[in-house]
Amino acid sequence: MKVAIIMGSDSDWPVLKPAAVTLDEFGIEVEVLVASAHRTPDKVHSFVASARERGVRAIIAGAGAAAHLPGVVASFTTLPVIGVPVNSTSLGGLDALLSIVQMPSGIPVATMAINGAKNAAIFAAQILAAGSPELEAKLDEHRRTMAEEVEKKAANVSFKK
Amino acid sequence: MKVAIIMGSDSDWPVLKPAAVTLDEFGIEVEVLVASAHRTPDKVHSFVASARERGVRAIIAGAGAAAHLPGVVASFTTLPVIGVPVNSTSLGGLDALLSIVQMPSGIPVATMAINGAKNAAIFAAQILAAGSPELEAKLDEHRRTMAEEVEKKAANVSFKK
Amino acid sequence: MKVAIIMGSDSDWPVLKPAAVTLDEFGIEVEVLVASAHRTPDKVHSFVASARERGVRAIIAGAGAAAHLPGVVASFTTLPVIGVPVNSTSLGGLDALLSIVQMPSGIPVATMAINGAKNAAIFAAQILAAGSPELEAKLDEHRRTMAEEVEKKAANVSFKK
Amino acid sequence: MKVAIIMGSDSDWPVLKPAAVTLDEFGIEVEVLVASAHRTPDKVHSFVASARERGVRAIIAGAGAAAHLPGVVASFTTLPVIGVPVNSTSLGGLDALLSIVQMPSGIPVATMAINGAKNAAIFAAQILAAGSPELEAKLDEHRRTMAEEVEKKAANVSFKK
Amino acid sequence: MKVAIIMGSDSDWPVLKPAAVTLDEFGIEVEVLVASAHRTPDKVHSFVASARERGVRAIIAGAGAAAHLPGVVASFTTLPVIGVPVNSTSLGGLDALLSIVQMPSGIPVATMAINGAKNAAIFAAQILAAGSPELEAKLDEHRRTMAEEVEKKAANVSFKK
Amino acid sequence: MKVAIIMGSDSDWPVLKPAAVTLDEFGIEVEVLVASAHRTPDKVHSFVASARERGVRAIIAGAGAAAHLPGVVASFTTLPVIGVPVNSTSLGGLDALLSIVQMPSGIPVATMAINGAKNAAIFAAQILAAGSPELEAKLDEHRRTMAEEVEKKAANVSFKK
Amino acid sequence: MKVAIIMGSDSDWPVLKPAAVTLDEFGIEVEVLVASAHRTPDKVHSFVASARERGVRAIIAGAGAAAHLPGVVASFTTLPVIGVPVNSTSLGGLDALLSIVQMPSGIPVATMAINGAKNAAIFAAQILAAGSPELEAKLDEHRRTMAEEVEKKAANVSFKK
Amino acid sequence: MKVAIIMGSDSDWPVLKPAAVTLDEFGIEVEVLVASAHRTPDKVHSFVASARERGVRAIIAGAGAAAHLPGVVASFTTLPVIGVPVNSTSLGGLDALLSIVQMPSGIPVATMAINGAKNAAIFAAQILAAGSPELEAKLDEHRRTMAEEVEKKAANVSFKK
Repeated sequence: MKVAIIMGSDSDWPVLKPAAVTLDEFGIEVEVLVASAHRTPDKVHSFVASARERGVRAIIAGAGAAAHLPGVVASFTTLPVIGVPVNSTSLGGLDALLSIVQMPSGIPVATMAINGAKNAAIFAAQILAAGSPELEAKLDEHRRTMAEEVEKKAANVSFKK
Repeated sequence: MKVAIIMGSDSDWPVLKPAAVTLDEFGIEVEVLVASAHRTPDKVHSFVASARERGVRAIIAGAGAAAHLPGVVASFTTLPVIGVPVNSTSLGGLDALLSIVQMPSGIPVATMAINGAKNAAIFAAQILAAGSPELEAKLDEHRRTMAEEVEKKAANVSFKK
Repeated sequence: MKVAIIMGSDSDWPVLKPAAVTLDEFGIEVEVLVASAHRTPDKVHSFVASARERGVRAIIAGAGAAAHLPGVVASFTTLPVIGVPVNSTSLGGLDALLSIVQMPSGIPVATMAINGAKNAAIFAAQILAAGSPELEAKLDEHRRTMAEEVEKKAANVSFKK
Repeated sequence: MKVAIIMGSDSDWPVLKPAAVTLDEFGIEVEVLVASAHRTPDKVHSFVASARERGVRAIIAGAGAAAHLPGVVASFTTLPVIGVPVNSTSLGGLDALLSIVQMPSGIPVATMAINGAKNAAIFAAQILAAGSPELEAKLDEHRRTMAEEVEKKAANVSFKK
Repeated sequence: MKVAIIMGSDSDWPVLKPAAVTLDEFGIEVEVLVASAHRTPDKVHSFVASARERGVRAIIAGAGAAAHLPGVVASFTTLPVIGVPVNSTSLGGLDALLSIVQMPSGIPVATMAINGAKNAAIFAAQILAAGSPELEAKLDEHRRTMAEEVEKKAANVSFKK
Repeated sequence: MKVAIIMGSDSDWPVLKPAAVTLDEFGIEVEVLVASAHRTPDKVHSFVASARERGVRAIIAGAGAAAHLPGVVASFTTLPVIGVPVNSTSLGGLDALLSIVQMPSGIPVATMAINGAKNAAIFAAQILAAGSPELEAKLDEHRRTMAEEVEKKAANVSFKK
Repeated sequence: MKVAIIMGSDSDWPVLKPAAVTLDEFGIEVEVLVASAHRTPDKVHSFVASARERGVRAIIAGAGAAAHLPGVVASFTTLPVIGVPVNSTSLGGLDALLSIVQMPSGIPVATMAINGAKNAAIFAAQILAAGSPELEAKLDEHRRTMAEEVEKKAANVSFKK
Repeated sequence: MKVAIIMGSDSDWPVLKPAAVTLDEFGIEVEVLVASAHRTPDKVHSFVASARERGVRAIIAGAGAAAHLPGVVASFTTLPVIGVPVNSTSLGGLDALLSIVQMPSGIPVATMAINGAKNAAIFAAQILAAGSPELEAKLDEHRRTMAEEVEKKAANVSFKK
């Protein structure tokens, strides 16, 4: 039960790494691949086409600019593909967001917020939790922890007495 | 093994209905609810909070304008939530898209294209296919059918001899 | 006669604090709460639902990205809710602005400029001034002071003799 | 206890009229004025400057394009001013929205959704409800009615048995 | 010496057809293919990979929404690829424009105006004119004809005597 | 004392004609030219370069899409050039607006609202009024007439008694 | 023969100052005023209403955000008003641009590029040049100087021999 | 067999220089010109009009803001013109992109990504490769090199093993 993370360039790694860290925290095995939809399309194809049989259950694909990678990945598999628009141009990531989310009918890409790699990992965990009461429990625990952190950080906010 | 579809108003139904039709074609049971994040929040809460135990495995939530429903649904469950931005204002759905996709860290919503309800259903099917070779086969079949339809429709395009 | 300020994260406090400072300058009691529409929805609900009986007369809610908090607050009360879009993503606050201002019919949120927390406080004071000649006088005084400041600062601008 | 509605041109009336109708349904007296920030500024000034003493407690101002009217109205009074961006150009109301909401520090305009006149009226009623248990009750009743309508209209949505 | 036109769906044909007509008027042979980057990627690949040896000298690719086709075509060949963003969603073609034009370094797509298929054909002719004095002459003639048409149509514009 | 109106295509005439009508109403002589910055640049050049000596005192140039005409006109003369962005593409005139208004330092184009040809004429009249008390009086009269029209049309707006 | 420059806050002066410098270089007398459309409207009114009789022939007004100042100035005079959108918010000046350029029919504001104060001065000089062969000659000279500067700076660009 | 690079100002050179470097790496002769569509239009005209006879086979034109240069260049020649939008204003290059890409029917400009000068050079090489097996081979080699670089840089990305 693995999740694959794929990005077109090593320059996207600082944005995508939180996805890997989060999946690891959930105890989910991670495969990471750097391969470009346009520069190394064959590598993308062979990695994705065999993903299901390698035990991959969801694929996270991050890309900036004319961000075709998530859609191209989705065209090679019926596994759930989660797209992360990367803010890498002067348009603030709007180009990547539209290139990823506006997929045509038939080939969905589940799009996250611009630079929202951590949420991609949580969403992947939610998919995998279907058959796993253990992972489901971890997700519930994660929610509680977040709520507690909101509380704790609230102490940073004080106005008068 | 069910998928729930939730929308804030009956006026969103023409956009969301293709999701229900598509799920039905895949043989997936569908629950449909009209309930508003702002006008009937309690109904949303009780429906979502008990969804997992009713056998729901993914929730599709559609909304337009300041489209809060998908995010509010996601805050009540760790089930995968799929958001469909509905084009219902003078801004062409850009308001709904940003309101759905730009979720804060911790609470992901898997966002589809503007008015992309059919893809929401296909994505839900991809999630459910994890434990179901039958559904996986149907998804593969769906891909083949799409490819054939592209071919057939190509006959509409002819230029000179 | 109080005004509540609510934000989803302590990271919004630097933007929201001027609202607290301004209300304080007007002699209006301030309640500050950090609670998230998505991470601690129950806390938001209980704080807002009991606000009127605690003497709160208006609620200022600030949020960035898919800024649902002001709308969620508004769904729990008929007190006037004032929304402050926070510039916290690569889209310059346009996402937060649209998520706050494009509320559906029935649940208004009075939206201020991006990062316009001070104006939220002034607007809240204008609401409270209804039954308070004293506050009304302070608002008039505030206008005069602003006009004088424009004059004073104008001295910074000089071109030739 | 009155609410004034002001617009720059009779062509804005179809968009603004729902505000008048809604205020009337809440039993709130309505003053309607057509006066332009640019073409009849004196009329705007005299109407607004004397509004408070005529018993006006909030002013709704609607405008399209370079929508200056709400801000100009706000500069003449410390009464709460509620702005309604009118969709009247090829930019879908985005021009009016930005012209109304991005007010500088010191002169707030409470901005509603594009064409959101009904919400402007509800928000005005929320302001006036401060000293009026009767109006507060009507607002609560309005919320209940909306919830019931969501329910009723839900019957229009049905999928299979 | 041929130019290929490729589109993802027969629904793009009304927008792309002027490219075929214009190439034909220039006496350039045209190949037309309907094949989808996501639904029939193999067909796209085989068509493009063998294009040069079939005598194709430039490829026009049109697509709407998350318009990946031109970029995917460009990744399979070093022939010049000309992209035509098709206006097919509620965002007026801005999504297609950004998805086509913002290509990453290394894989250029020469982007035309939204729905600018005729210009794609003229640009292709300009590329082919390199080795063809005849085509160069036709392009010059085309410019003269355009200038004359501007003159002729100017007769439709008259004001007073 | 004349004003020239120039447009790239007869298709812009319905948008530009109100400029001609308004100038005529002010008693200002009008020259109308259809000539394209890209298709008949020489004609633009000769018309503009000799405009001052023909008695032209200001030039109104309208264009849509990549609206280069006003800037090109401005590069050929030091007469005041007034640009009118024409809404002629799927982007609502935003493309034309930015292409006209964002002129580089040194070559200004005075930009009007999208489709704002009437205002271009009024602005031209304001320029010409410098040496003409008669035209100045007509502009004052025009303001009064506008104010009266706002009043008259206000009668179309009535709510209850 | 003077040009007035008006801005709402001393913080706009760094953007507007190049207008003053440029006018001075053309030998045109400059009046500079800091006065706010919303905070000191009376001062704006009295300054503008008497401008013509003080010898002012054009008014440059700069503003950011909901940039109402140029339009408000234009409503008080039939002198030519030139608007300069100031980039002062997180939206890159798009808010100011739309607030200035999209003026309603009847009250034109000649809009320059975002932060385009120098062009505002040149355009004002072009207006004043009507009755002044001397100023006309200076504008011609300015064009020549610019052309020479392009040439000189071109020396900074060299690639290989 | 040459490619010309033209820009309106030496300030664009840092963005355009990668085009010159890349062309040089492909062994293509480069001509570089600084000339402004608005400030030195005659120089642009004479350079472009004689380009074909000097052996130029494609022209790369870069510009920011109201980026008219590429379109103006295209109006003077039937050589292929490649436009590079330069990010030089507060709008992130969106103004330049729309000004370059939205060319009217008849005069195409092949538009690259914002600041995409390197791709402009590659595209020019693809055009020139038509009659040159040597250049075609270099382009194939360039693709292989890029693919290898993706691989090499992938080593920078590692997550646990």
